[in-house]
Amino acid sequence: MNDSTGPSSPRFAPVILAGGSGTRFWPRSRRARAKQVLALDGDRTMIQETLARLQPLASSEDLWVITNALLESEIASQLPELNRDHILSEPTGRNTAPACALAALLLERLDPAIVLGIFPSDHVVTDGRRFQEVLRAGIAIAASGRKIVVLGVPPTRPETGYGYIAQGTRTEMDRPDAAQTPARHVIRFTEKPDLARAEQFLAAGNFAWNSGIFLWRADTLAGAIREYAPELMAPLERIVAAFGTPAFAEVFAKEYPTCTSISIDYAVLEPRSALGEGKSGIVCLPADFGWNDLGSWDSLYQHRAGAVTGARPNVLESESSLAIEAHGNYVHAPGKIVTLLGVDDLVVVDTGDALLVTTRQRSQDVGKLTRALSDAGHEHLI
Amino acid sequence: MNDSTGPSSPRFAPVILAGGSGTRFWPRSRRARAKQVLALDGDRTMIQETLARLQPLASSEDLWVITNALLESEIASQLPELNRDHILSEPTGRNTAPACALAALLLERLDPAIVLGIFPSDHVVTDGRRFQEVLRAGIAIAASGRKIVVLGVPPTRPETGYGYIAQGTRTEMDRPDAAQTPARHVIRFTEKPDLARAEQFLAAGNFAWNSGIFLWRADTLAGAIREYAPELMAPLERIVAAFGTPAFAEVFAKEYPTCTSISIDYAVLEPRSALGEGKSGIVCLPADFGWNDLGSWDSLYQHRAGAVTGARPNVLESESSLAIEAHGNYVHAPGKIVTLLGVDDLVVVDTGDALLVTTRQRSQDVGKLTRALSDAGHEHLI
Repeated sequence: MNDSTGPSSPRFAPVILAGGSGTRFWPRSRRARAKQVLALDGDRTMIQETLARLQPLASSEDLWVITNALLESEIASQLPELNRDHILSEPTGRNTAPACALAALLLERLDPAIVLGIFPSDHVVTDGRRFQEVLRAGIAIAASGRKIVVLGVPPTRPETGYGYIAQGTRTEMDRPDAAQTPARHVIRFTEKPDLARAEQFLAAGNFAWNSGIFLWRADTLAGAIREYAPELMAPLERIVAAFGTPAFAEVFAKEYPTCTSISIDYAVLEPRSALGEGKSGIVCLPADFGWNDLGSWDSLYQHRAGAVTGARPNVLESESSLAIEAHGNYVHAPGKIVTLLGVDDLVVVDTGDALLVTTRQRSQDVGKLTRALSDAGHEHLI
Repeated sequence: MNDSTGPSSPRFAPVILAGGSGTRFWPRSRRARAKQVLALDGDRTMIQETLARLQPLASSEDLWVITNALLESEIASQLPELNRDHILSEPTGRNTAPACALAALLLERLDPAIVLGIFPSDHVVTDGRRFQEVLRAGIAIAASGRKIVVLGVPPTRPETGYGYIAQGTRTEMDRPDAAQTPARHVIRFTEKPDLARAEQFLAAGNFAWNSGIFLWRADTLAGAIREYAPELMAPLERIVAAFGTPAFAEVFAKEYPTCTSISIDYAVLEPRSALGEGKSGIVCLPADFGWNDLGSWDSLYQHRAGAVTGARPNVLESESSLAIEAHGNYVHAPGKIVTLLGVDDLVVVDTGDALLVTTRQRSQDVGKLTRALSDAGHEHLI
């Protein structure tokens, strides 16, 4: 462990949310093989990369994962260093607020001052060193000031698929790293905008994409839940009381599904931000560490093409390859020789049981295929 | 066997030429797995289909195959009904004239009056019954009149990749099937024309594509070889003398490579046709039995699409498939589910070790890929 976890550093407990079951990377991703357990970018899976980025910042006994029954055993085998009791498997998905709240109540019992971090498990970070710098700054702010720290990605395009964070004036100026990692008051959170508003946000310059990474003390989050989502408290307190006992699985299975299904943004951050800039205690740090949420095959292509020379390079994941008059293609066919002749901007994904052929432009519609496969009785392939 | 092989019918010996090693169907076709030993259209391989079409016309002891060392054992296992001694394996490819001449000299020794038929092994015939009708007519003409019979395909487009046969007046009018299967004198053979000439040929109405199927008595062909290609005689006579002896393989290996490499068209048919219409004794019958030479993946698509409903159907060879807003694609991925989304007119071929992605339009350039693979040191994949 790194010296930042020594006695002088705040205790930090990363909670990795890994319950998602997207179909955007079908046929590689399946219900029981979601994006976060795939090695879409490199040798390690996305959840392995997520954990590896966090390990220098936390003691191993403070690492937590919240997932679901379909993924639990795969995640346990991918993360052997994790305490098996720290992999919580939701009986049913209830969006992010109940998961965050459960983590807050469990950790509050251990140490109310522990800084709890929420981390999606299926995003790419290219600059791990910068990630750790920003996290250290955020942990310090969350620990000392009872602030809520959100990480906002500097936007590069008028993306309509993300939530936005409107940022106000600078704050936390007395930190030694304030110049390098400026903090700003959050003015408000904005749901996915239409294109015109997204373009305004991009032009305004003070908007960031919501990365889904949040830092706060366990008692701060637990207090916010009590204030803004009190209906979650009764079932979650019963679950927390059973944690570590033989009854845990049964109580979890009974109580969790009664929780309201709501995102942490909508349940806590948006109402809290309504207190106003500076008064809400919500602070934004720049997630300027090469963040990418890999939302589609095209997005994976864009990410990987950045590392390949050429204006419209081919990204070919294969034993070997040969391309003639072919540009901008993404092909995944491990173990094979991939040959392209006179084709552009295609996506071809070859797994043992399925072959997907589409274009980069249409790759965001892969969900149409999986719905049609389901309708056609091919449930086992999804 | 069918009654046409009874004592009143001419003895008929089909000689199937199966030495080709094209790369147009790469990655399915390889040097040791050429087009003729692949099941491109249906369950049986092309050489199995070729043999099956000929079996009703000939006794099993009169079936011959000429191939090469790379394909010999595969062909022997695909055609178990064939006498193993009747599979001749050329030590090196010398084009079609030496192969035809060797067959003629071998068969002349058995029976000078035997009708010898030359058949490519990699063409599709959709109407097997009509094939046998035309063949019976041709065998009768070749047997009775010492004529050379060529089969000409009614052209459907100004194809520049084929040789053409210019036909003159009707002949052999006294046959009972003369109306159904008209015979015409051949005026001349024409090499692959440019587009303007091919269009003229198509408009003229009396041109046919050269199918590569020829029928003649063994002594007629042997005589023509002696006249037009006498330099082939010495080595081939030494090979024929050794046939059936333990020295055969050695003599074949030594003598055959000394033969001139030349096509039967160029060596015999063109000079013979120069005698003039009616005087050359070369007669053309219509190969109007659904002939297709399957020259490229696109040509295979066109052939197979004919059997599928829809204006631009997808031809998908797979365990199952799903296509959304996709038209005119050819995909070969046996055992997989193939899914297409928003793609048109592609060719995707998935084998255990290779994946080809191209367009139907570019599929005739697959040879570019195999040459580049060879240059890149991937000889083992060709």
